[in-house]
Amino acid sequence: MKSFFMPREEKFFDLFEDSARNIVEAAKVLKDLIYTWEDVEHKVDEIRGMEHNGDNITHEVIARLHRTFVTPFDREDINALAQALDDVMDFIDAAAGAMLIYKVKQPGKRARELADIIVQGTIETEKAVLKLRHRASMKDIRDECVEINRLENLADVLYRSAIAELFDEAEDIADVIKWREIFEHMESATDRCEDVSNVIEGVALKHG
Amino acid sequence: MKSFFMPREEKFFDLFEDSARNIVEAAKVLKDLIYTWEDVEHKVDEIRGMEHNGDNITHEVIARLHRTFVTPFDREDINALAQALDDVMDFIDAAAGAMLIYKVKQPGKRARELADIIVQGTIETEKAVLKLRHRASMKDIRDECVEINRLENLADVLYRSAIAELFDEAEDIADVIKWREIFEHMESATDRCEDVSNVIEGVALKHG
Amino acid sequence: MKSFFMPREEKFFDLFEDSARNIVEAAKVLKDLIYTWEDVEHKVDEIRGMEHNGDNITHEVIARLHRTFVTPFDREDINALAQALDDVMDFIDAAAGAMLIYKVKQPGKRARELADIIVQGTIETEKAVLKLRHRASMKDIRDECVEINRLENLADVLYRSAIAELFDEAEDIADVIKWREIFEHMESATDRCEDVSNVIEGVALKHG
Repeated sequence: MKSFFMPREEKFFDLFEDSARNIVEAAKVLKDLIYTWEDVEHKVDEIRGMEHNGDNITHEVIARLHRTFVTPFDREDINALAQALDDVMDFIDAAAGAMLIYKVKQPGKRARELADIIVQGTIETEKAVLKLRHRASMKDIRDECVEINRLENLADVLYRSAIAELFDEAEDIADVIKWREIFEHMESATDRCEDVSNVIEGVALKHG
Repeated sequence: MKSFFMPREEKFFDLFEDSARNIVEAAKVLKDLIYTWEDVEHKVDEIRGMEHNGDNITHEVIARLHRTFVTPFDREDINALAQALDDVMDFIDAAAGAMLIYKVKQPGKRARELADIIVQGTIETEKAVLKLRHRASMKDIRDECVEINRLENLADVLYRSAIAELFDEAEDIADVIKWREIFEHMESATDRCEDVSNVIEGVALKHG
Repeated sequence: MKSFFMPREEKFFDLFEDSARNIVEAAKVLKDLIYTWEDVEHKVDEIRGMEHNGDNITHEVIARLHRTFVTPFDREDINALAQALDDVMDFIDAAAGAMLIYKVKQPGKRARELADIIVQGTIETEKAVLKLRHRASMKDIRDECVEINRLENLADVLYRSAIAELFDEAEDIADVIKWREIFEHMESATDRCEDVSNVIEGVALKHG
């Protein structure tokens, strides 16, 4: 029986890995956008396209969940994982979109530092997702989650410094409002990587 | 057996339809408020009353859910639907409340456009809710959800334009802060209509 | 059979009570911070330490939930309760943290009033949590929830006044931005107390 259902179950892992890879790609474009500050509109559009792509993956996971009787792990965890991955993407897209709408000038050091952490966080998140299919050891998965958590804490500290500096250094209060929102989106992206890792840790705990 | 439970099950549909109708009414008052900008305090109070009414409906759904053994569809979907309808109402109320607290002047073109979309979005949301009881065809429900999604995308584009214009055109940075919050609430109301439609699509998929 | 599992089940109540007590303590430090405005950095650090403590409790609840077969009440309610308690703590911490980062001056009357309500709200929340273990009567639990709801409504009214006054009275638009965020966090803390009480009321309804 199990072998009969397995091919359909494997599809969930395919979709989660597609979603995780999509997020890594978007994070890299965001970093490139922030570092070079060239072709801004084109790069923001590129991220927006990835966000639509991510939406499609999420919808396919949910539709498949409703149609599938045997799932590789608990239904609510599949739903939570799809949602958390989608949220990471949404915040990367929101950060990029806000930079365009707000017509900000070249991002500074804090934006670059946060972009670095987002790239690292998404890469570790993709690794954690890959461990799910291969039923890695609990220790292996926990190590990955500890690293994602470390990056999230780092992002949090950076975010707080960035906000404090904004009020001290911004030439214009409008810039404070704009960058505060952009930094919030960036910090939220790393928060949601941690949500992904929490779901994966939970799944590993149940099946470990 | 089934006929024995049905009357109690039907009550869930009654409550969801009450909630959806309540949201349409609130959206219409919001639109009227924004277009005429007369009797502001009275209209905001009216919406606040509808919000309390919606809270009561939501509480009744949840209380009934805890007491009912056989439900017309999955318990978590009943909970999610009640919550999503409640959230639409909360954001309509928050938008209206913020206009009053912030003592804003007559709303402009973008606020009117967003109010139009909220009215359309809630009307389509009510239609989708009605289709649930009558177990409309999957195609029928999906068409409704596509329309709600289209409206949400439209609201998103409008929201971004509204925010960009705020920074360019507002006379006063305080107005930027105030209207940014109001526009956020309005855009969130259409987001939550989409959440409602996602729950309904999920239910239809499972039972289709 | 039941007596065999009970000791492990009791641990969940221990953890929820630890979490609730932790929140009360944090609320009291926040109130003290706001009233005296002395040793600001030290008190904010103290709250941050309590927040980490709360995180550990939440993680232990979730880990235990994954490992435990028989739980004292529904798994999703255990998860929701742990999360809601954690959220109360997060908003208390966010309010304190923002005061430090933003280098605000001595908080005013509205901040003191909101701090009072947060202390009261967390004390009532702890009482509600204690009633869970002792399987208090439904009426008893509902009375507690009505009181928490009353405090939340009070906080909401205060918050709206505080925000309106900010725009009218703040000397500097930067202060408006800073205090609006702090007040939002404070109001959200009382919102989350209400979430806790909703979960507890739901559990009581199911088991009443």
